[in-house]
Amino acid sequence: MISSIAYGAKSAASKLERMEIEREEPKANEVQIEVLYTGVCHSDIHQVKNEWKNTVYPCVPGHEVVGRIVKAVDGGRFKEGDIVGVGCMIDSCRACEPCQSGDQNYCEGHNSWLATYNGPMKPAAMTDDGVNTYGRDNTFGGYSDTLVVAEDFCLSIPETLDIKAAAPILCAGVTVYSPMKHWDVKAGDRVGVLGLGGLGHMAVKIAKALGAEVTVFTSTPEKIDEAKKIGADAAYIETDKTALAPLASSFDFIISTIPDKHEVTAMLTLLKRDRMLIVVGNLDVLDGVDNMQMAGHRQGIAGSLIGNLADTQEVLDLCAEHGIAPEIELIDIKDVNETYTKVENGETRFRCVIDMSSLN
Amino acid sequence: MISSIAYGAKSAASKLERMEIEREEPKANEVQIEVLYTGVCHSDIHQVKNEWKNTVYPCVPGHEVVGRIVKAVDGGRFKEGDIVGVGCMIDSCRACEPCQSGDQNYCEGHNSWLATYNGPMKPAAMTDDGVNTYGRDNTFGGYSDTLVVAEDFCLSIPETLDIKAAAPILCAGVTVYSPMKHWDVKAGDRVGVLGLGGLGHMAVKIAKALGAEVTVFTSTPEKIDEAKKIGADAAYIETDKTALAPLASSFDFIISTIPDKHEVTAMLTLLKRDRMLIVVGNLDVLDGVDNMQMAGHRQGIAGSLIGNLADTQEVLDLCAEHGIAPEIELIDIKDVNETYTKVENGETRFRCVIDMSSLN
Repeated sequence: MISSIAYGAKSAASKLERMEIEREEPKANEVQIEVLYTGVCHSDIHQVKNEWKNTVYPCVPGHEVVGRIVKAVDGGRFKEGDIVGVGCMIDSCRACEPCQSGDQNYCEGHNSWLATYNGPMKPAAMTDDGVNTYGRDNTFGGYSDTLVVAEDFCLSIPETLDIKAAAPILCAGVTVYSPMKHWDVKAGDRVGVLGLGGLGHMAVKIAKALGAEVTVFTSTPEKIDEAKKIGADAAYIETDKTALAPLASSFDFIISTIPDKHEVTAMLTLLKRDRMLIVVGNLDVLDGVDNMQMAGHRQGIAGSLIGNLADTQEVLDLCAEHGIAPEIELIDIKDVNETYTKVENGETRFRCVIDMSSLN
Repeated sequence: MISSIAYGAKSAASKLERMEIEREEPKANEVQIEVLYTGVCHSDIHQVKNEWKNTVYPCVPGHEVVGRIVKAVDGGRFKEGDIVGVGCMIDSCRACEPCQSGDQNYCEGHNSWLATYNGPMKPAAMTDDGVNTYGRDNTFGGYSDTLVVAEDFCLSIPETLDIKAAAPILCAGVTVYSPMKHWDVKAGDRVGVLGLGGLGHMAVKIAKALGAEVTVFTSTPEKIDEAKKIGADAAYIETDKTALAPLASSFDFIISTIPDKHEVTAMLTLLKRDRMLIVVGNLDVLDGVDNMQMAGHRQGIAGSLIGNLADTQEVLDLCAEHGIAPEIELIDIKDVNETYTKVENGETRFRCVIDMSSLN
């Protein structure tokens, strides 16, 4: 076993604190990674606080991980010294139809995909008969000095990407890129982005890279200017009905990145006929799904969950190619609890990344 | 003007009663129709009772109309004596993008499409500035001896269809057929139908005609057998979690035809990955749109509103070709108020059609 230092929570009520954890030695086709940078995702907070009612403690979060390979066993994809990324998944069943077709993030194996932390997960519709196909009761994530992962679930970090800023692409980036690809966002499309946080600001940059015209909807007045600074063509206060009225039925694609429960009716009225509102931020029962509006324009609402491995590599490469990257605040891991409060209050711009050298 | 006999409501609180109305003489490219049969749609009841908050009184319902042309002016499509159908629309702006592409039912002209009754309608997102592009304040529907309609908005009733039973195809039939076509329901697909009323029973017959395997979900125990009698491969009580559990993630397409507010979560769990739940019955804010479920399987919910003229002709022809038709109860117009109560209580099997000769 590898003894490892981590930051984790012992219960839903506790702060993150320094702890020792053990990791298994890498087996064939696995790599051991020295973690360099880990992004702080809003879902880390949901999970630590057990807001999705499935947290196993201790909980060591972190699924936006960039690190250096210190040991590679057998496999051929990576060698020692390579800089790689690890996102939300470290394995999947590899046998179900989604896995076979490359959509590991929709794995329908008994335990679904193996989450980088708090895994194994179970699909919502499946009854729990106690079978754990992964043989691990609780995975520990990237708030840690070491990670051991199947090499198939590592991503290559392009050389031209700033490795500090690459971390949030592995969740925030692919979470907004994957639905843009799936629902065919293309040059010239009018794209709306609801919420300008970690996911939202990446949605702006990625949609712009795809050639779209991008409009941001936010509840925070100071983010109107900030949206334009990072490339948005326009930005509005999401509740400003007067300003939004002329935009009715004009968007090809709208993505909601708000992590909390929110009304979606106003966004539906901005969509063109036959288009979709994609909700990626809020994994809860949605309010205000007005079917008079949807039926009248044959519109829909869909959810989307992170992205598959191919999507993740694509968005890393897209960011490198277009010279874009998340806007980050580098933090010391000792400040992570304060950072959680700032994230919850929408005070970060736009993603905090932990410098894991601060763990020592 | 043509003096005409009709049944209509004078207020949201009043019963339907016999009344005299006036219709304009047919102009160029319009036809005057002697109404023979008119279906009773659940939306007639919503509209008469002002449940959508847009009813203009007097309200003469009826948008599932089959009749005989008694006068055809100029146009060339139909001649006197032809049996034709009229559905929910009698005109549209003909200039907007949806109209130009044949989707008159999603007309984005100032007043949207011209409803067969209670028209002109306005799109939900548009403010009312008082412009009426149709020059008619309130159209009167098919609970009447005469209808005057643009010939472009008449459908041909295939000779092999029973004209009494053809009427409900014009709304109930096309409302379920159009989304099946749009979302590409095909032979071998597993189709779920939620609700077994006027729309639901046509969804079963049409999906079977398309080659799908069809399962009905109903809240009414006696409809389990009735569903199978009209062709469903299986039927379940929609709230029977034990029976539904083995069906998780197994449907290619589910259509909800329930006219009242209802939870949709259980139906989402039955859908395969990347598939859609289409809600056509309930034009209200939907309850239980669980985005943990949707995101976990990249599923969505969409609305769909009746169908365009081409869809309507297609579904009439499909019914004729496959020898299918709505199951109807023929009623006397003097019994229409009692029929409304029966429809609201789910006591009709499955669509009531008014024999308009009873008006005399």
